[in-house]
Amino acid sequence: MIRVLCQQLAPVLGDAEANRALSLGAIRDGVRAGADVVVLPELVTSGYMFQSADEAAALALTPDDELFAAWAAEAERGGALVIGGFPERGGDGRVYNSAVLLDGTGVLGVYRKCHLWEREKLWFTPGAEPPRVFDTRHGRIGVLVCYDLEFPEMTRLLGLAGAELIAVPTNWPRVPRPAGEHWPEVGIAMAAARVNRVYIACCDRAGRERGQEWNQGTSIISPDGWILDAQPDLGSAGAEVDLRLTHEKAYTGLADAFGDRRPELYGAVSSPSGVSPTV
Amino acid sequence: MIRVLCQQLAPVLGDAEANRALSLGAIRDGVRAGADVVVLPELVTSGYMFQSADEAAALALTPDDELFAAWAAEAERGGALVIGGFPERGGDGRVYNSAVLLDGTGVLGVYRKCHLWEREKLWFTPGAEPPRVFDTRHGRIGVLVCYDLEFPEMTRLLGLAGAELIAVPTNWPRVPRPAGEHWPEVGIAMAAARVNRVYIACCDRAGRERGQEWNQGTSIISPDGWILDAQPDLGSAGAEVDLRLTHEKAYTGLADAFGDRRPELYGAVSSPSGVSPTV
Repeated sequence: MIRVLCQQLAPVLGDAEANRALSLGAIRDGVRAGADVVVLPELVTSGYMFQSADEAAALALTPDDELFAAWAAEAERGGALVIGGFPERGGDGRVYNSAVLLDGTGVLGVYRKCHLWEREKLWFTPGAEPPRVFDTRHGRIGVLVCYDLEFPEMTRLLGLAGAELIAVPTNWPRVPRPAGEHWPEVGIAMAAARVNRVYIACCDRAGRERGQEWNQGTSIISPDGWILDAQPDLGSAGAEVDLRLTHEKAYTGLADAFGDRRPELYGAVSSPSGVSPTV
Repeated sequence: MIRVLCQQLAPVLGDAEANRALSLGAIRDGVRAGADVVVLPELVTSGYMFQSADEAAALALTPDDELFAAWAAEAERGGALVIGGFPERGGDGRVYNSAVLLDGTGVLGVYRKCHLWEREKLWFTPGAEPPRVFDTRHGRIGVLVCYDLEFPEMTRLLGLAGAELIAVPTNWPRVPRPAGEHWPEVGIAMAAARVNRVYIACCDRAGRERGQEWNQGTSIISPDGWILDAQPDLGSAGAEVDLRLTHEKAYTGLADAFGDRRPELYGAVSSPSGVSPTV
């Protein structure tokens, strides 16, 4: 069993120092609370509501930035993993909406968001690589960022690649929902967790930034698709999870979430013209 | 605007005559209530809880069975479409878990369930063709059957192929759910509707059959992923739907549910070995 903890924070747009203190404190608090995996929001080092590419670029970091060494030092106190979002300056000079995964030994990997939401397209370059599964001290962890989650191909890809936990730093701008319903992105995560039999930990943000509010929808979801813990306000959501449960894709001896797939029929997913549109 | 109506019925296992009367009455009632599209449950002509392949085969029908001509005659009274499930005897002598789509002119098409749930594998042959979109008098309609829905590739395929409405005859055996949550299959349908911007109409069944109860989860879901109407008991769920809403896949001028896809990155979905499992 490991303890997964999401820290729903309120970063301050453009204030790298404030966000440094915020993120370090959140990791420290999480580790003290016994977390093995600490998930932070998307773009936690910078804030989200940029108004220009220059503004985003000015806050971009490389994965060897001293900030991540400081995150790693905090993680090391509890042997924890940390996943959190940041604007990344690539070796190519471009700026990506990325998430770093690290432990006390340093950065284990960086994932660049493949599906950029809305005006992010004006200041970020989309990732060119599909998501990977990182084999860590605390399990096989896939990383997506926010809008990626709304493409079921992405969660399926990670599920098939053996992910036990998908960590999703996110900034979900506030959207409408009917009374009694989950945030739509949470519902999508619940469905993805269930059909892929994986844990999904979505870490949203709080606060108000240039007038924008957020769903504050942080949720940790079981392989059955149910919410283990959620956090509607500033603060954390945490759950003890048994990653071995994700190894069992069979529902019964005669039904299997993965074994029952018919990939030979799914080719048209990437080429819809291959599907006869009429009777 | 068209009116979609699902009839959550309680077929009688093995009693073709009773089920004939039940299905004809349900179509008649639906058409009288103004339905343009009437969806009936999976295997509505036969019941579900077979104990042998012989039992299923004995109830299998061909699409030119007189029953479907009778369905078509009822449909014709209101210019309606009907989608409903039946055990199909194929030209190859095999038995399929199928759904027929018909209107007053007769059978427009048959879809054979591609993903067989559990013991269905003991008496049915899985469909060999991916689902299609049928261009009908009441819109572009895709048909799936029950467990198919739990494979997001299937709903994606129909969405990309231009489906406006996905009709899903189903028999959902009763499963656990936490208080306040939707049935898991309904949650999966809600997520699929939202990410594909399509309507989904799931028609479940009621009653008890050889000790088995059902979710009774009939639900009609909007392209935003919300439930327009549901039926927890015997009876119907109905909604007026504007199929044109499904033509708009854009969320904003800078975000598009389909245009933002990255199919060049999804290849690994069908070949997980293509994904690096470690950092």
